[in-house]
Amino acid sequence: MPVNTVEWKNNSLRLIDQRLLPGQLKYITCKNTKQVFEAIKKLKVRGAPAIGVTGAFGMYIGARAINTKSVELFCKSLEKVGDHLGSSRPTARNLFWAIETMLECAYDNIDNPVEKIKTILLKEAKNILEQDKLICRKIGQNGASLIKKGDTLLTHCNAGALATADFGTALAPMYIAKKKGVDFSVFVDETRPVLQGARLTAWELVNAKIKATLICDNMAASLMKSGKIDKVITGADRIAVNGDTANKIGTYNLAVLCKYHKIPFYIAAPISTFDLSLKSGKDIVIEERGKEEVISFGGRITAPKNIKVYNPSFDVTPHELITGIITEKGIITYPCKNKIIKHCK
Amino acid sequence: MPVNTVEWKNNSLRLIDQRLLPGQLKYITCKNTKQVFEAIKKLKVRGAPAIGVTGAFGMYIGARAINTKSVELFCKSLEKVGDHLGSSRPTARNLFWAIETMLECAYDNIDNPVEKIKTILLKEAKNILEQDKLICRKIGQNGASLIKKGDTLLTHCNAGALATADFGTALAPMYIAKKKGVDFSVFVDETRPVLQGARLTAWELVNAKIKATLICDNMAASLMKSGKIDKVITGADRIAVNGDTANKIGTYNLAVLCKYHKIPFYIAAPISTFDLSLKSGKDIVIEERGKEEVISFGGRITAPKNIKVYNPSFDVTPHELITGIITEKGIITYPCKNKIIKHCK
Repeated sequence: MPVNTVEWKNNSLRLIDQRLLPGQLKYITCKNTKQVFEAIKKLKVRGAPAIGVTGAFGMYIGARAINTKSVELFCKSLEKVGDHLGSSRPTARNLFWAIETMLECAYDNIDNPVEKIKTILLKEAKNILEQDKLICRKIGQNGASLIKKGDTLLTHCNAGALATADFGTALAPMYIAKKKGVDFSVFVDETRPVLQGARLTAWELVNAKIKATLICDNMAASLMKSGKIDKVITGADRIAVNGDTANKIGTYNLAVLCKYHKIPFYIAAPISTFDLSLKSGKDIVIEERGKEEVISFGGRITAPKNIKVYNPSFDVTPHELITGIITEKGIITYPCKNKIIKHCK
Repeated sequence: MPVNTVEWKNNSLRLIDQRLLPGQLKYITCKNTKQVFEAIKKLKVRGAPAIGVTGAFGMYIGARAINTKSVELFCKSLEKVGDHLGSSRPTARNLFWAIETMLECAYDNIDNPVEKIKTILLKEAKNILEQDKLICRKIGQNGASLIKKGDTLLTHCNAGALATADFGTALAPMYIAKKKGVDFSVFVDETRPVLQGARLTAWELVNAKIKATLICDNMAASLMKSGKIDKVITGADRIAVNGDTANKIGTYNLAVLCKYHKIPFYIAAPISTFDLSLKSGKDIVIEERGKEEVISFGGRITAPKNIKVYNPSFDVTPHELITGIITEKGIITYPCKNKIIKHCK
């Protein structure tokens, strides 16, 4: 395992404060829902699966603080905890999935006393974490089949160990291929504005001794033109039933470039990322973030303070630009509604 | 005039140190070729036309320091000055153009004594500066015809007043349209790694009260998808005889995105940017810059220090992706060899 991004330790949730990487590896401890909310909101923890696991433990942390013996009141309070945690990152499908799973778990056990339900919820959160680990490995194994000797891959943002509780999603195939001794290399988009590629993916890959080269986001096109990219693998934050995929801003840009240069474009994501209630990408709400991320860096102002800024956190890649979606169950090639519904069953 | 980027003042070359913008507007003075070389090399002055004007005055500054009465020795020394200055920025066509023009001017006047040739060279450098001003205005007028009421434009890097001795190239049509009272707005790519868009173009446009919105480079694609961009105008550093254009890294990315989204893509550049000796973009040497620009910002390390970095300063946009090249003589639509040779005559 590269790092323990999300862990349950001493009755608290232990997270890596990813905003401090690559300079500093610092762990933070969450003992109440306010801390969990802040950790998600302020990107201390990021990456859809890691947010999901965090949300699950957040629900337990919220549950254990509810002071009532009435199961009905307990469940109502827990729903409020879920609403609150869900508002920290509205585009993160896995967060909602984890919250819903935890709520369902509570309702499935309403015949038990409150304290017993709390114990069951902790077990469920731990189970979600273990499931995530297993899923990462399976995505890794399925995706590794795509990585051939001599391949040069490109990835965007961080869908690695730091985004999950294990090997990651987009990076999992690379970790498995590396384990198998396949010789390949990776270009890493720095991923403005928050630089998850430069700070996190580059850090992970260097640590894992995988050959990696950092580029600015606007350099991928010319690399593709000169034939230096064999395939692109990114993660996903939310996938609609037709395969349209929301992921870190810049992903759609890469997908268009891949189409133009005839390069395969893959998404790697657990099945929990699919939201089958969304007909297409048009139904996905895109979160906009503050202008500070774009106009300053490292405390230094890099643009006039009074300039207007547009800072969407995600973009949507339409399914027709996606060669395949790698999940724990296999690869959905040329994804469409029928294939996805069948795959997710 | 927005600002005086390049000026001849008190027998010295006065430049804005653009590395300090937008925080600080500081002028530097060059009195010898070493200072001129450093100013170009270290990006204190940047933008092809501004570099050209700087190179012309650099040649005069070099010429006046040559201590000989032999015209032959003088010319040989001046050639060495040209070789030296030319090595500061190997991709900048305008720099070579200015150096060659100054050398030709010297050779055209070899019947005169050395001191007289020096005086003629100063006049020639001043003439190049005045010509640049005139060219900017003409590019502005020609390009302004493309900007309609309600248009939303996108530009990359800085091809504005700070890149020339006047209104700029890509921004000149915007300044002229603004003067004419046309209501339009502009998205500005921040332009990693050196952030010329965020630091310089945003600063210029805010100062000129042109409606501008700053984005990260990877956001343009999703703006285009949602129909928010009507046309793209960028500058150029070098154009081959077939229309293939070298410009700041990320320009080719935009051109591919424009093709995919059926958005017109324009280059604005003076005729001096054409290098008719280059058959195509394949003949253009792409300068690679140091890794520091990519792995750190504002003194803060943003990536692991031991990560490999690829940092090309330019990319090449093939002519088939270019809707038109705006020059001081008009607009070359769908540029190709025949049209370009005719236009440049």
